[in-house]
Amino acid sequence: MSCKPIIGITMGDPAGIGPEVVVKAVTDRRAAGGCHPIILGSYHVVSSAARKFVKGSKVRRIVWPEDANISGGGISVLDCTRSDHRRIKTGKVTKLSGRMAADSVFCAVGLALSGRIDALVTAPLSKKGLRLAGFDFPGHTELLAYLTATSSYAMMFVSPHHKVVLVTTHLPLAEVARSISKRVILDKLAVTQTALQTYFGKKRPKIGVCALNPHSGEEGILGGEERRIIVPAVKAARRKRMRVDGPFPSDTIFSPSVSGNFDCILAMYHDQGLIPLKMRGLGQAVNVTIGLPIIRTSPDFGTALDIAGKGVADHKGIVNAIQLAARMARETKKR
Amino acid sequence: MSCKPIIGITMGDPAGIGPEVVVKAVTDRRAAGGCHPIILGSYHVVSSAARKFVKGSKVRRIVWPEDANISGGGISVLDCTRSDHRRIKTGKVTKLSGRMAADSVFCAVGLALSGRIDALVTAPLSKKGLRLAGFDFPGHTELLAYLTATSSYAMMFVSPHHKVVLVTTHLPLAEVARSISKRVILDKLAVTQTALQTYFGKKRPKIGVCALNPHSGEEGILGGEERRIIVPAVKAARRKRMRVDGPFPSDTIFSPSVSGNFDCILAMYHDQGLIPLKMRGLGQAVNVTIGLPIIRTSPDFGTALDIAGKGVADHKGIVNAIQLAARMARETKKR
Repeated sequence: MSCKPIIGITMGDPAGIGPEVVVKAVTDRRAAGGCHPIILGSYHVVSSAARKFVKGSKVRRIVWPEDANISGGGISVLDCTRSDHRRIKTGKVTKLSGRMAADSVFCAVGLALSGRIDALVTAPLSKKGLRLAGFDFPGHTELLAYLTATSSYAMMFVSPHHKVVLVTTHLPLAEVARSISKRVILDKLAVTQTALQTYFGKKRPKIGVCALNPHSGEEGILGGEERRIIVPAVKAARRKRMRVDGPFPSDTIFSPSVSGNFDCILAMYHDQGLIPLKMRGLGQAVNVTIGLPIIRTSPDFGTALDIAGKGVADHKGIVNAIQLAARMARETKKR
Repeated sequence: MSCKPIIGITMGDPAGIGPEVVVKAVTDRRAAGGCHPIILGSYHVVSSAARKFVKGSKVRRIVWPEDANISGGGISVLDCTRSDHRRIKTGKVTKLSGRMAADSVFCAVGLALSGRIDALVTAPLSKKGLRLAGFDFPGHTELLAYLTATSSYAMMFVSPHHKVVLVTTHLPLAEVARSISKRVILDKLAVTQTALQTYFGKKRPKIGVCALNPHSGEEGILGGEERRIIVPAVKAARRKRMRVDGPFPSDTIFSPSVSGNFDCILAMYHDQGLIPLKMRGLGQAVNVTIGLPIIRTSPDFGTALDIAGKGVADHKGIVNAIQLAARMARETKKR
């Protein structure tokens, strides 16, 4: 019996860089050393990518995820899409490419929920492709929440420097202020605390909360959301014995000397959390959906249709996501 | 005749850390080496701060800024407030402390406009103090624009790593989206270009423009301001032969590999510009008001009433502001 976790990796949208970065990543020692990676997707799409992008690689079609344990190297693929791979055009997202990407995710979720794989890493898919295929979700996160019937979940980004969780995610800036509420913040804090305990071994994690407005609202002159919403949420969380501090002005909390005091920072909106994260290492951050009953990580890049099929895509993001998923899976098994 | 520029430094609100950091800074070799610094404020407040915070310092009352040239070391003060310094209480902003802070600024602007000083550095004042004294301005920037009858101006932040100009400044986040317009962006771009040419020796400066929404609006799905406002503004600027690029998602433009392509980055709102700036060096950034007919810099911290009078305030921000003001003054004289 192997003690390494089995990590299922979806191939992403076959029109994008997904298949390329996935085959490169699973043959990269940095990823394969700590786990048994298996690719979930079209056997034909993956073998074709392997032939093109990983010289001398062997692709093996497996039927059970547990077969990944059988040593012998090579790339293990669990075929989970019946669509016709020959109609896929690199660089062009279609109903078919969207369908194939979705099929991989459906298969992955089933395997993860039933414990056949220990964690799930997703390669980039296209929202447009999903929609064309009839699945109208803003992205992986919401699709996974739907498939696992999860109502409280959040996007966490993990970089070598710090962790960030977002209160609001993909929203126009004009809608951010009216989308935050005490209830939503408390919900994200609870999900964050549980994730830090479950996946990162923090018994009593410390969470720093960002203000929404400049200078944290400056006593209400620059916005009332701190007084009305964020401060009451922080107080309520503390009454529940959570270690939560804030709100802090977002232009100071992310400076290394301050962010180092927290196990995780709760940002109110996308760019507030992502600007500092990407500044200290573009491409190093791993996206984790917390709150799900399964472990799911992904790289912080998209389908990159413009460079698909050219062999120039950097697979480091998938390697990071695999390594983190393996680490989280091991931490969970300790419990 | 001395070739070093004369830099006038206001003492800031006497209830805050202003007098302390100013006397420390003008006696710091890093600042005084490249210019003749003179303090504009209350002789009594400044001498008392000097006695307390700079051992063995001599304070000299001067009448003309040009007297700063006379060597002999010591701290030169041009007395420009008639208020009673004995009623000032450290740590407590009052009508009187606000009035004294404002007096320094009035005096400084007169000297700068008439060319008697080459640049102006302002120590922190309190908005509340200003208001109590009857001057209802959100801060130095707007007060200086008013006193110099300037309508097009902007806040620029200069750090060792990059420069940022803000389109909107001290506004609740909820008001940001409706406060940007093509006209405002074009105006800020023009002021920025002129400042980079005049003060920083860039003949044809390159300016990068931030998006407002996450993922730069993602083709309108995450907000329409990019298509409706920012893209047209960038195009209009280019038609005027300005080197302007964007909009770029704000979570990528500030990563060092991208921001290095630009002489300055135009951010749409306060935290968008200030998060990355302070991340790469809290306390290193200097605030410059561009568009004024005079040179004005200031540190990026406030009155810090909680530590006023304790001798623990860090004056490095004032030193940076003095050094930058001197550099800008020298660059202007070249022209």
